[in-house]
Amino acid sequence: MTLSKKLLLTAAAITLPQMGLAQDTEAAAVTAEMVWIMNTLLFLIGGFLVFFMAAGFAMLEGGLVRSKNVTMQMTKNVALFSLATIAYWAFGYNLMYPLGTWSVEGVLSGVFGFGVLEAVGIDLAGADDGEYASTGSDFFFQLMFCAATASIVSGALAERIKLWPFLVFVVVLTGVIYPLQASWKWGGGFLDNMGFLDFAGSTVVHSVGGWAALAGALILGPRIGKYKDGRVNPMPGSNLALATLGMFILWLGWFGFNGGSQLAMGSVGDIADVSRIFANTNAAAAGGAVVALILTQLLYKKPDLTMVLNGALAGLVSITAEPLTPSLGMATLIGGIGGVIVVFAVPLLDKLKIDDVVGAIPVHLCAGIWGTIAVVLTNPEASLGTQLYSIIVVGVFAFVASGAVWFILKATMGIRVSEEAEINGLDMAELGMDAYPEFSKS
Amino acid sequence: MTLSKKLLLTAAAITLPQMGLAQDTEAAAVTAEMVWIMNTLLFLIGGFLVFFMAAGFAMLEGGLVRSKNVTMQMTKNVALFSLATIAYWAFGYNLMYPLGTWSVEGVLSGVFGFGVLEAVGIDLAGADDGEYASTGSDFFFQLMFCAATASIVSGALAERIKLWPFLVFVVVLTGVIYPLQASWKWGGGFLDNMGFLDFAGSTVVHSVGGWAALAGALILGPRIGKYKDGRVNPMPGSNLALATLGMFILWLGWFGFNGGSQLAMGSVGDIADVSRIFANTNAAAAGGAVVALILTQLLYKKPDLTMVLNGALAGLVSITAEPLTPSLGMATLIGGIGGVIVVFAVPLLDKLKIDDVVGAIPVHLCAGIWGTIAVVLTNPEASLGTQLYSIIVVGVFAFVASGAVWFILKATMGIRVSEEAEINGLDMAELGMDAYPEFSKS
Amino acid sequence: MTLSKKLLLTAAAITLPQMGLAQDTEAAAVTAEMVWIMNTLLFLIGGFLVFFMAAGFAMLEGGLVRSKNVTMQMTKNVALFSLATIAYWAFGYNLMYPLGTWSVEGVLSGVFGFGVLEAVGIDLAGADDGEYASTGSDFFFQLMFCAATASIVSGALAERIKLWPFLVFVVVLTGVIYPLQASWKWGGGFLDNMGFLDFAGSTVVHSVGGWAALAGALILGPRIGKYKDGRVNPMPGSNLALATLGMFILWLGWFGFNGGSQLAMGSVGDIADVSRIFANTNAAAAGGAVVALILTQLLYKKPDLTMVLNGALAGLVSITAEPLTPSLGMATLIGGIGGVIVVFAVPLLDKLKIDDVVGAIPVHLCAGIWGTIAVVLTNPEASLGTQLYSIIVVGVFAFVASGAVWFILKATMGIRVSEEAEINGLDMAELGMDAYPEFSKS
Repeated sequence: MTLSKKLLLTAAAITLPQMGLAQDTEAAAVTAEMVWIMNTLLFLIGGFLVFFMAAGFAMLEGGLVRSKNVTMQMTKNVALFSLATIAYWAFGYNLMYPLGTWSVEGVLSGVFGFGVLEAVGIDLAGADDGEYASTGSDFFFQLMFCAATASIVSGALAERIKLWPFLVFVVVLTGVIYPLQASWKWGGGFLDNMGFLDFAGSTVVHSVGGWAALAGALILGPRIGKYKDGRVNPMPGSNLALATLGMFILWLGWFGFNGGSQLAMGSVGDIADVSRIFANTNAAAAGGAVVALILTQLLYKKPDLTMVLNGALAGLVSITAEPLTPSLGMATLIGGIGGVIVVFAVPLLDKLKIDDVVGAIPVHLCAGIWGTIAVVLTNPEASLGTQLYSIIVVGVFAFVASGAVWFILKATMGIRVSEEAEINGLDMAELGMDAYPEFSKS
Repeated sequence: MTLSKKLLLTAAAITLPQMGLAQDTEAAAVTAEMVWIMNTLLFLIGGFLVFFMAAGFAMLEGGLVRSKNVTMQMTKNVALFSLATIAYWAFGYNLMYPLGTWSVEGVLSGVFGFGVLEAVGIDLAGADDGEYASTGSDFFFQLMFCAATASIVSGALAERIKLWPFLVFVVVLTGVIYPLQASWKWGGGFLDNMGFLDFAGSTVVHSVGGWAALAGALILGPRIGKYKDGRVNPMPGSNLALATLGMFILWLGWFGFNGGSQLAMGSVGDIADVSRIFANTNAAAAGGAVVALILTQLLYKKPDLTMVLNGALAGLVSITAEPLTPSLGMATLIGGIGGVIVVFAVPLLDKLKIDDVVGAIPVHLCAGIWGTIAVVLTNPEASLGTQLYSIIVVGVFAFVASGAVWFILKATMGIRVSEEAEINGLDMAELGMDAYPEFSKS
Repeated sequence: MTLSKKLLLTAAAITLPQMGLAQDTEAAAVTAEMVWIMNTLLFLIGGFLVFFMAAGFAMLEGGLVRSKNVTMQMTKNVALFSLATIAYWAFGYNLMYPLGTWSVEGVLSGVFGFGVLEAVGIDLAGADDGEYASTGSDFFFQLMFCAATASIVSGALAERIKLWPFLVFVVVLTGVIYPLQASWKWGGGFLDNMGFLDFAGSTVVHSVGGWAALAGALILGPRIGKYKDGRVNPMPGSNLALATLGMFILWLGWFGFNGGSQLAMGSVGDIADVSRIFANTNAAAAGGAVVALILTQLLYKKPDLTMVLNGALAGLVSITAEPLTPSLGMATLIGGIGGVIVVFAVPLLDKLKIDDVVGAIPVHLCAGIWGTIAVVLTNPEASLGTQLYSIIVVGVFAFVASGAVWFILKATMGIRVSEEAEINGLDMAELGMDAYPEFSKS
């Protein structure tokens, strides 16, 4: 795997003096087009990787719920991603970029007049003014972030929430709540103007999903029997192999999540940065997993796989606000602290009788806050005050708005299944379909 | 992992001082090289994504069969993909591009004289005349489509077909039937000349797989006990988490399936089109899933996860004939109608006592026909008459040819396992190996 | 996530007519920049594909162990990848490229002074001297190979090894043993200078993992009851659907493993070679699977799915030393012989009472040796003597070094769980957590 220096030297030789103005222009025009192509390609690759996180969340959550609720958890995850696609197209994308390039005519030209892609077969001159990549690729990439926010919620509220109210919440979250607050940072809004730094969304995506989950968990209440007679009653997941698969898929998708958020790879500088981001993202996940492994060994004398899985995910969330500037060692450390947070936040939530089935709040909210603060450790442009202010502003908005929606849903449709349905399992009670009908239950 | 010196030599050639016009040509040649590189890269990325669909089909089918047939379903899926690789190399690729660039000497130069890649370390001038991308990448990409056709069949005929006759059918399907009809459109044959439009294969791939499955299902007959005393006896899948994973993997792979079928990404226009395709493909899947969710709630009062999974897949099949020209809203609608089709076609097949274990015929054949017709909705170049004519021509050929093969196999090897083997499960009877040996069966 | 127009304007500025030498240099430099970008992109895509192999190994192994050991197998796989990340960063990367570009100051500039990425936002001139791609992308890609070596070991030693001694071994393997011998070939060391050819690591990665596993299996001994009263007692895997998924994920990842090892895709020649590699890699896997299918039918009258899975993997390992030069037919043949090897090596190991739970030694060591020898069949630059010499040198080193570490671990920490823990399963005994707590065991 070694290359001699010949390649670079040879390439350098290409710079030998050549003639002709037309030629120069020609050669350089190619460059602008190639930059545009490469940026678009980054969105597409990043986008399909983040898309796959939908499967990762589904498997993680499906493995961590009890077998009587697996069909429901699968249904929710497929449905939430699909509804997020529609809601983000119908409302979210335009809401998130309110000052964008969408003219009135453009907006009206779709079937329903909502999200609009560029025309077929455009050229560089015909590309949307000021754009550095395809609108379609940007829509595709941004949609996946929006959908991820909803996936976070589904895990925390599993095993007792009704299907349809949950899906109504998803539509509001992905169509309105997420895009509105995302516009404050990524739409060039006031938090962006203040200098808030959140590279790929420790706050904008993960903590928002976490706040929405927390509001839901508080209003929905814990599962029957979870906190009984002052004790925390463990309700072990039904399929840890599946949960591990889900974690690995999420880790894979995160390369797209963070790497794609560089938004450009048409220059040496940009793609070298994407490379740094890939390496750091991986290092942070490793840090989180190893710390959770060691800590659970020390605290409980036995390593806890679910903590290790959540440790890796917390490491990933922690590095998401700033995956570029840290060194590899610092990335490992930032992720490792995410692992510490998870190991302590999970029992803390239980102490507060907040029932989060898969640990989504420790992973996405707690580590998301930590990651947003950690930006100041390695990025000299970050201001601790601005980071904290933004965490609070986004948090208050996401928590209050989500809480209001949950409250309205509770008052109108009702959000919780009947006691009988919860005890018998949502699969048979609500869907009439068992995920593992042949595996007898102990 | 050493680099040959050819790259360096090629690069060095560019450094030769040249004048005026010659130099301009040279500069443009660099552009042409980048286009060729980017097109090839699209095939490679698209190809590995479509490859992964083999895993998606395996998981979907493995989750929807009963646990006593899972080992067999896994064996069939690994074997069919492997045999498709060999058959497409030995016969299919050359058959599919009969007027292609393959000379007699070229064809004879492989070990067995079949599919041949370009030489190692070619340069642009040495690339096959008229090619816009690497032959190897094209072979790789096209192979995956061919193999997908066979995967469709394996699901429909599960739980009662013998292994070896099924694999013989796969060889004929992937070596002859698929490539022959594919040449009519994608090999520049008569359907292509007539103006038939099928961007990524709603008809060429999906309906052909569906017709082959239908012919097989008719000749093979339903599973024992499926239609008894005038009632449809449900035989629920053994692992819906696995089936959901399979669906998500297929959805992921479809970005390669449809996006790669743009066949080029070396210009702003092409990659912007690929981006449109990604976004539309995703929208159609979402439309299909949401419609199936709502429809099953309305019709049966309970959402049906297997319908939602098949709804998403039907949405994907529906958009495959024309993923480029629709707006996002129209793509959602086209996919949504695919979802409607699945919800009604599944019980209709049962009424006709055609036993399709995983719903492959509704998804791939019915939605494939719909998608091929739907091209006229958004692509002004499409003619309804030509689309219908092509659907019929391909359908008659695929159904008759497949039926003939199934008939011969039935008459010679026999295609159905013994009644005892079917009741006890194919895993123990035919393979002597249980997929879940420790999970006691209810 | 919006970019200002600056990027496009900046790029456009390059097109402004400029005079003489400076302009020419500018235009030509773009070409060299694109090569660097494309090479880096290959490492990133290849890297994330190989990363996903960590999930593939976990699922394969998790499906092939008995259910009482699944949580442990998941824990080991997540932990080993995470520790490999840290060990390769801390020691391995620098050890592997001892004559590399890492200056003393560079090495000290990280948090802990170990692996160091290039600075943020470099330009081509600022890229490390002599590099043809981003250091970060190279680190990311190479790390995944290192981690794969450790994954191989975890399968062979499953169901009886203690967690922590295993993880200590992983740290030594990935931090020292793997990188040291890898430097002999890929670090430009003495085997490379001798003309040893191992494109993507049949020897450097797979056989090293296999030797480490063999040394461990010998020192650890077989599982209780595996070889009893002169008979081999089968201990069937608990979830063959999961194992099949793992195999497919590994097959997918192998496109990155072998394709990425071309190390360049910035020219027609390089990306056409990557395309050849993709097609050949796929063909070899197919060959291995089909041969194992047919052979087990002939030998045992029943096809054996676990052999088919291992046959495909052996095909992949076999083509890894030279995926470029073979024709498609020859690649199928080389992979097919890998399949033969697995079918005979698995019972042979049992005869020798070497207990390899998942067949890692036949797949990675035996087929790895075969693949390394097979280079001479298609690559005229290969010398059989040098290939054999290198196989032996690497083998002796890897076996002796691994054996020494296992021996020390056995003498100090002890490497084997108690008899009681082994019989009851490592999950409850060591971790207190069942992977499938609700599925009653037969």
